Amino acid sequence: MNQIDGKSARALLLILSTFTYLLFGAMVFDKLESEEDTRVRDEIERITDRLKNKYNFSERDMHLFEAIAIKSIPQQAGYQWQFAGAFYFATVVITTVGYGHSAPSTSAGKLFCMVFALFGIPMGLVMFQSIGERVNTFIAYSLHKFRDSLHQQGFTCLQEVTPTHLLMVSLSIGFMVIVSGTYMFHTIEKWSIFDAYYFCMITFSTIGFGDLVPLQQADALQAKPLYVFATIMFILVGLAVFSACVNLLVLGFMASNADEVTAANREPPSAIVLERFARNSLVESQLFNIQKHSTVGVLPGRPRRMYSIVPNSAGDVHLRRRSTRRSIQDTVCCGCFKPRPPRYRFSLTRRPTNISHLVDLELY
Amino acid sequence: MNQIDGKSARALLLILSTFTYLLFGAMVFDKLESEEDTRVRDEIERITDRLKNKYNFSERDMHLFEAIAIKSIPQQAGYQWQFAGAFYFATVVITTVGYGHSAPSTSAGKLFCMVFALFGIPMGLVMFQSIGERVNTFIAYSLHKFRDSLHQQGFTCLQEVTPTHLLMVSLSIGFMVIVSGTYMFHTIEKWSIFDAYYFCMITFSTIGFGDLVPLQQADALQAKPLYVFATIMFILVGLAVFSACVNLLVLGFMASNADEVTAANREPPSAIVLERFARNSLVESQLFNIQKHSTVGVLPGRPRRMYSIVPNSAGDVHLRRRSTRRSIQDTVCCGCFKPRPPRYRFSLTRRPTNISHLVDLELY
Repeated sequence: MNQIDGKSARALLLILSTFTYLLFGAMVFDKLESEEDTRVRDEIERITDRLKNKYNFSERDMHLFEAIAIKSIPQQAGYQWQFAGAFYFATVVITTVGYGHSAPSTSAGKLFCMVFALFGIPMGLVMFQSIGERVNTFIAYSLHKFRDSLHQQGFTCLQEVTPTHLLMVSLSIGFMVIVSGTYMFHTIEKWSIFDAYYFCMITFSTIGFGDLVPLQQADALQAKPLYVFATIMFILVGLAVFSACVNLLVLGFMASNADEVTAANREPPSAIVLERFARNSLVESQLFNIQKHSTVGVLPGRPRRMYSIVPNSAGDVHLRRRSTRRSIQDTVCCGCFKPRPPRYRFSLTRRPTNISHLVDLELY
Repeated sequence: MNQIDGKSARALLLILSTFTYLLFGAMVFDKLESEEDTRVRDEIERITDRLKNKYNFSERDMHLFEAIAIKSIPQQAGYQWQFAGAFYFATVVITTVGYGHSAPSTSAGKLFCMVFALFGIPMGLVMFQSIGERVNTFIAYSLHKFRDSLHQQGFTCLQEVTPTHLLMVSLSIGFMVIVSGTYMFHTIEKWSIFDAYYFCMITFSTIGFGDLVPLQQADALQAKPLYVFATIMFILVGLAVFSACVNLLVLGFMASNADEVTAANREPPSAIVLERFARNSLVESQLFNIQKHSTVGVLPGRPRRMYSIVPNSAGDVHLRRRSTRRSIQDTVCCGCFKPRPPRYRFSLTRRPTNISHLVDLELY
């Protein structure tokens, strides 16, 4: 089976899995929501009939009133398009959350919104990735400092800092952001704890249904500038922290995908990512360069020099020490020597004088 | 300036740029939408007063009626949580579009929605990336076939297939998807052409305000199964095509970011990506392996064999032919030979018999 078929098969398998997953989700949602939906439907009909009878609406006025009620939703929440609201809206656009609590109604507004999103979303993505990377670097640095201080005090419980530790810390910070957000919205918006938590999850996944939207009560957009600031920062910081996690999980996956050819010779992707974060603060650039090369199968020096580097850097990086050493050994055998045993057999660096009469001068 | 400072500076610059961009967007949205907002606000107040006077509402009934009108929006559009609607909802969740035309109202529904999104969104992302990759491979293959047939007919207008061509074709397909979607929604939903186009853009950017949502009129979810299928496929196919574009643009960026160390020795990222797509269909795996390695500085064969490969594959790949050849030359000099010129001087593969008495037996 060649590479084309394998990849197409993978794509097909993914499509099938996704559709199965959607079918499964649809069945569960149907089961969970249909009953409540019917109940609300009946309730609405009952109340509408009662009001209709009480006030003797004409059908036309009835529809007019409905339309007015729907249009007045954002109006009741304060001025949606004055500066604070517009800034909130712009944030919701470039993060692709898109609550829809307000949406441009003029053609000019819609046109600008499309152009704004076209450039804003990539910019936002790059910013979040960049912040996520910095967060990860900082966590890796802190973890190593923490380990070193533990070792100095004689504790050896944290022998090595692995990518799993990094991810765990990232996720913990993300969880803390969600908890603080849940508390904030529970207190200020009077949502239940569960609803506030649900809101945070729907926001940070950038789904943003808009069934729960903060800053939509009691003219909050104009009356509570601090709360507006806190909400916008909550969305941006939360997405940055989750970018840090995605950075760890996805970047490794993407990197390993991009170089499938050399994948077999490589460290696990997560290890590469951690190494990348760790090296900035902990490993001398030169050392890392050589060690990095070694894992993809290049040896820019002599093997003896390679071996001497490992113990030097091991004190700092400590990344799957055994597998790194083995991969270097493999490389030494495969990368340069194994593919051309004939040359190795006749390379006699130690006794040049003995065979100098055999050497082609043009090779000098 | 070391790497840490540079990266932190980049992150800081991105944050500043993004906030400036948000400020700019907020000001423009304020300018464009505020006036219309005020007009609608006044209009609503006027009509509400008129209706209030006509029917002499109590304040309580007024609020009740508003609440009913708001709750009845999704009800009027048909059963949102029967199978078709639930499937549509599930699609909107895992694509992170999140129109919010319907959202779970029960706690069980909300809980399942969070779990469903947690696993569904990564799965969807991987699927879209995989399909996008396949689409790109197919486009690269078609472009090469097209060029070859042009050459056979004596036209030489398309000398080389570059990543720009690939991206242009991807974007054209994306544009065609948007045009057909715009036409479909314009005809069936009776939206204006501009609104239908705006809807497509807001959907494919996964913002999904929900100000315009298809399948919400005339019981479409239950009455028009074909239209439901077309809408869901439109969203999925559209996102897959745009993933193909993002794959071309972002993957190259990510890949180059992940291996900054070797970046200097590399082809431009976009070229790597095109090469990766092209090789699947056009270049023999073995040939590519060697050529691929050559660009990162590994030579798993003899130099003479390397050189002979370039003209072979050049007819097929045609990727910056000169720079590829140069990088191979560099590699031949640097990667294996420059670091140990002494060994090269005495490697005599052609006359083993002459020096067989000098060879260490243990090296055989």
